[in-house]
Amino acid sequence: MAARLLDGSAVARQIRAEMRPDIEAFTARAGRPPGIALVLVGSNAASELYVGSKLKSAGESGLRADLERLPATASLDDLLRLVDRLNRSELHDGILVQSPLPPAMGSHAERRVFDAIAPGKDVDGFNPINVGRLVQGRAGLVACTPSGVIEILERSNIAIAGARAVVIGRSDIVGKPMALLLLHRHATVTICHSRTTDLPRVAREADILVAALGRPAFVTPDFVKPGATVVDVGTSRVEDPALVARLFPAGSRRREAFERRGALVLGDVHPDVEQVAGALTPVPGGVGPLTIAMLLKNTVRAAEDRFA
Amino acid sequence: MAARLLDGSAVARQIRAEMRPDIEAFTARAGRPPGIALVLVGSNAASELYVGSKLKSAGESGLRADLERLPATASLDDLLRLVDRLNRSELHDGILVQSPLPPAMGSHAERRVFDAIAPGKDVDGFNPINVGRLVQGRAGLVACTPSGVIEILERSNIAIAGARAVVIGRSDIVGKPMALLLLHRHATVTICHSRTTDLPRVAREADILVAALGRPAFVTPDFVKPGATVVDVGTSRVEDPALVARLFPAGSRRREAFERRGALVLGDVHPDVEQVAGALTPVPGGVGPLTIAMLLKNTVRAAEDRFA
Repeated sequence: MAARLLDGSAVARQIRAEMRPDIEAFTARAGRPPGIALVLVGSNAASELYVGSKLKSAGESGLRADLERLPATASLDDLLRLVDRLNRSELHDGILVQSPLPPAMGSHAERRVFDAIAPGKDVDGFNPINVGRLVQGRAGLVACTPSGVIEILERSNIAIAGARAVVIGRSDIVGKPMALLLLHRHATVTICHSRTTDLPRVAREADILVAALGRPAFVTPDFVKPGATVVDVGTSRVEDPALVARLFPAGSRRREAFERRGALVLGDVHPDVEQVAGALTPVPGGVGPLTIAMLLKNTVRAAEDRFA
Repeated sequence: MAARLLDGSAVARQIRAEMRPDIEAFTARAGRPPGIALVLVGSNAASELYVGSKLKSAGESGLRADLERLPATASLDDLLRLVDRLNRSELHDGILVQSPLPPAMGSHAERRVFDAIAPGKDVDGFNPINVGRLVQGRAGLVACTPSGVIEILERSNIAIAGARAVVIGRSDIVGKPMALLLLHRHATVTICHSRTTDLPRVAREADILVAALGRPAFVTPDFVKPGATVVDVGTSRVEDPALVARLFPAGSRRREAFERRGALVLGDVHPDVEQVAGALTPVPGGVGPLTIAMLLKNTVRAAEDRFA
């Protein structure tokens, strides 16, 4: 029996529709729409795509969205000066600096930049003060991907309270905030990672399994308790024909898409999991659209908090 | 076979001895010892005891420790003014405001006060910016009890990396930071709480079981995998003779202590667990002494960071 597919695009549309009256009310009150500044350093192809879809979604939702570009040769100081200017901007309630930064900026550049964004404008939820408030269960700006996962679970009537949730991956931007959000909704939460012993066995304890490790098709059916809800946070661009041939039979829709385009975006969850899971977020069309919707929602919230 | 008892008092002595040269070096360099201010509002009997032992330990270790008292009738504003003065004090590197505050200060008083303590002097590790840095695995001031647990585990050669750790309790000051510290040391960590389904079964998965729920003798042998390490963070003052009679046979040392004093300090772990666990921290004499040692260590660290 095939898993119920959880339609992230539909949930994202629903969230954006619910935000519309708030955006209109804010715009009427403040004399301007909520505004977000997107900062792009250099011109990484994937980053251009991500930033482009964020700009488009923001514009369609009635937000002001400005793209601020710096050349790939910009220094960390240049970027910190731009962030400082945006922190003081009256028109921008949210600031997002697109990762990754050019390696020449140094290994701590992202951390320095995220620390520099004013906590009230930190719509990515990466500033330590927002992370600390998340731990303490206090209102604030929370990382977009994990809060999007909560939205899709809740709006799909997946019970979180009392469930066993297993999160594979312990990154600062997905795994750890994901575990905290599930915990605060009364799941019993286990966090797994590369050092976990017998990962498939631990994952099989889950009623809700969140895969956020960034390894295409890593989570195979032996990781999944029959009927469990599986959330696939991974998005890897795969160009290896052998891997695609192993995952998708000749003549299948995705195999043919690969043959046309030379690449596929794959999640962390193996296609065969669809036969074991009770519910599943697909890639693409699952968590991805939610991430952008939550970014817009954070921007509206930041705008309202500034004018409260 | 009885569990190996992990001697928290001995580990705390060891930590304090290791700090001595750092304290002497700081004192020589700064012309004054590292200083901590302990703030006590009103005169709760248990708080007087806790503050008294913190003052004593600090003094014995060569730290300056000042007790700042406010009357039970003090307002939250009075307390915030005192915190502000201590934030600016040249003599104090650490500030600890003893919980609980008088209920008349309002339900959000503790949160307001912990938020007001300068992050660099927040030796309790309760300020959200320090909590956020803990999540991000960055150097900072970390809550004393969970960091004390890590010290006793590591110094007792209990392997954390690759182990399954289960934390019972999800408080901001013990459960959540405990889970994060174990995770960063590569344990596979599960956090349980009052809404966990079949808690004994989940607890039995643990190689390292941390009980931090504050219910005396709640963790019975059926919670414990034979040979597991059990860390007992609870300290409850018990005055109920029926409970004591159920836990300790007539004529036993603890039963007689209860009969003499009319009260016992008990942990969250049932005495029978000693027959199942491989290693166990006793109450008293386990985690408690570590908490104070880590408070002193945080104070020295805060002093060094201010003068770095």
